[in-house]
Amino acid sequence: MYNHEPTDYECAYCSLLAGTETQFNAKSDIFLETDKAIAFISPKWWVNNPGNAIIIPREHVENIYDISDDLLVEVNLVAKKAALAMRRSYGCDGISFRQHNEPAGGQHIWHFHLHLYPRWENDGLYENDAKWRYVSVAERLPYAKKLKDILGSP
Amino acid sequence: MYNHEPTDYECAYCSLLAGTETQFNAKSDIFLETDKAIAFISPKWWVNNPGNAIIIPREHVENIYDISDDLLVEVNLVAKKAALAMRRSYGCDGISFRQHNEPAGGQHIWHFHLHLYPRWENDGLYENDAKWRYVSVAERLPYAKKLKDILGSP
Repeated sequence: MYNHEPTDYECAYCSLLAGTETQFNAKSDIFLETDKAIAFISPKWWVNNPGNAIIIPREHVENIYDISDDLLVEVNLVAKKAALAMRRSYGCDGISFRQHNEPAGGQHIWHFHLHLYPRWENDGLYENDAKWRYVSVAERLPYAKKLKDILGSP
Repeated sequence: MYNHEPTDYECAYCSLLAGTETQFNAKSDIFLETDKAIAFISPKWWVNNPGNAIIIPREHVENIYDISDDLLVEVNLVAKKAALAMRRSYGCDGISFRQHNEPAGGQHIWHFHLHLYPRWENDGLYENDAKWRYVSVAERLPYAKKLKDILGSP
């Protein structure tokens, strides 16, 4: 419902789930897995919040209107575990979530996803919304490792 | 865990749940209720996003680290219903969620809550983070009414 996914869309998250690796999504980014959802380090980092993560359902579903209760529950239970692991292993001062639907809502990838941000005092996450960059697989690796070490490997 | 609630904290959300009305929270703001969670119109509005809502568990719990799986599930299922109702009844172009934990994470009220925002094209929700005001019960009323009309009264 209220869908914006183009016909013949090639979903980056479905590719990752299928094992395809790109500069944006690699298997080494994944730090938590269940039979219905995964959590991985995002390739897009805001200036003061390195190592933010994304939680997705394995099933391709576009947004909050379409997702089944069952998958929404699973994504949020994985998110809770990931949040606590991030708080402990990064040593950050707080945790925030964001979830966007439709282009006007800030969605850019047409597979439901929940953003998980490590927060630090005065990091200005919202004020710095335009200040982001794509980071390499190598830069992401130590963040995934910290989370895997505390959670146990997926 | 990682708690910041002062001793003898008077919780604004628990007051609302107990039926106490203030300029910030009134019974008329509530548009969706279950036995474990409620959704209501926020008294704090950002400049281009009037009528944003908040979903809370009835049980007082501070943050994502402390909330039980059961309550987290309930809050998110209520949020999904509220999101679809908002999209339909406000006629907005999208929906975003935010959830904040600890002072550095942007949390100001020590009772777990999930923010639900109606989004419009180029509303600049993040860029306009400092542009907000408290609105009156009367200003909030038509937004709660739109949601109640589409959902059925709580």
